[in-house]
Amino acid sequence: MEQYTKTERNTVKRVPKRGHYDKATVYEVLDAGFIAHVGFSIDGQPFVIPTAYGRKGDQIYLHGATTSRLIQHLQGGAPVCFTVTFVDGIVLARSVFHHSVNYRSAVVFGKARLATEDEKMDALEVVTDQIHKGRWQEARLPNAKEMKATAVLVVDIEQASAKIRMGGPSDDKPDYDLPIWAGVIPMTTVYGKPIVDEVLPDDIPMPPSVEKFA
Amino acid sequence: MEQYTKTERNTVKRVPKRGHYDKATVYEVLDAGFIAHVGFSIDGQPFVIPTAYGRKGDQIYLHGATTSRLIQHLQGGAPVCFTVTFVDGIVLARSVFHHSVNYRSAVVFGKARLATEDEKMDALEVVTDQIHKGRWQEARLPNAKEMKATAVLVVDIEQASAKIRMGGPSDDKPDYDLPIWAGVIPMTTVYGKPIVDEVLPDDIPMPPSVEKFA
Repeated sequence: MEQYTKTERNTVKRVPKRGHYDKATVYEVLDAGFIAHVGFSIDGQPFVIPTAYGRKGDQIYLHGATTSRLIQHLQGGAPVCFTVTFVDGIVLARSVFHHSVNYRSAVVFGKARLATEDEKMDALEVVTDQIHKGRWQEARLPNAKEMKATAVLVVDIEQASAKIRMGGPSDDKPDYDLPIWAGVIPMTTVYGKPIVDEVLPDDIPMPPSVEKFA
Repeated sequence: MEQYTKTERNTVKRVPKRGHYDKATVYEVLDAGFIAHVGFSIDGQPFVIPTAYGRKGDQIYLHGATTSRLIQHLQGGAPVCFTVTFVDGIVLARSVFHHSVNYRSAVVFGKARLATEDEKMDALEVVTDQIHKGRWQEARLPNAKEMKATAVLVVDIEQASAKIRMGGPSDDKPDYDLPIWAGVIPMTTVYGKPIVDEVLPDDIPMPPSVEKFA
């Protein structure tokens, strides 16, 4: 199993057994979503911005307007931290102290660069497909003007880690005698039924990528 | 309506009409969740760490082990950026370019300090209640040893902004003639039925805070 190099920077310090450094586990977390929190620092001031992304191999693609702060700052190769998190449940222990959350998160470290013109269209397909599989084949593809207004950043993953907690509460031994309810409230993200654009003509059918949500 | 001071740092640059600077809107986003992505920078290296939080007035409370990197770094008063995001839907436009996501996010700027011993217990109640309303009254409260192992950071909100997108797709005029389906796939986070800890004695009833999920 291929592993990311483990240094101080990407080591899970709190509850180390929840840390994972193999690429398969990190990819599994990254591939489950499409919004990351991207962290960068300008003159010592940190910024954390939610952004859509796509992953292909050991690269992350971010896209945005060429004028955006994130794009403008990161295209120069500044270090970036990129985090994706899913909350899977609230863990109710007998003691307040052992309350916890079930979650999966991936933290990625790297540097960004601007995608070349050759890479750009493919990267946008990866991002679009990560948000909504199959949509690239259904929608009108970007024209030259739109491509010009869009910047794509490529982040080569230098290091990463995943951190995962699952299962029920774990209390201190004496607390198991307390008459306090303990367990987990699961949390999931669900997709609702598609809402059709109110100006869409009646004769335009739902495409395959949307039909599976209907 | 009380507003946060707007400077370069907290100004929403992309699609400015989605930006909000009034406290009521920022609080509404912050109060809808309990996991934030906290960004800080150590020697120019940004870190983005998912963390539970609580809000009370214009203060954010974060808690963690006294030994955690986040706590150790931030307790010295380093600048912090704190972001909470909800994804409400995927917006499928006729053109790839106008694809979007419905979301609510809040970005908070401030500096952290360690809570005093007097503030700590109250802050932990705020965090616990933000995760699971009413739980503080049901669980065993922290003892002296647990309090000592737990650090609480207080972030006074210096500046903040919210950014919100709702509604259907917006395409370029000529694209409305294309035979391409357009609309929104809503996304929501739902709570599942409580899963009782398998070693819980049968005679311990579900408390009010859990019953409402059953």
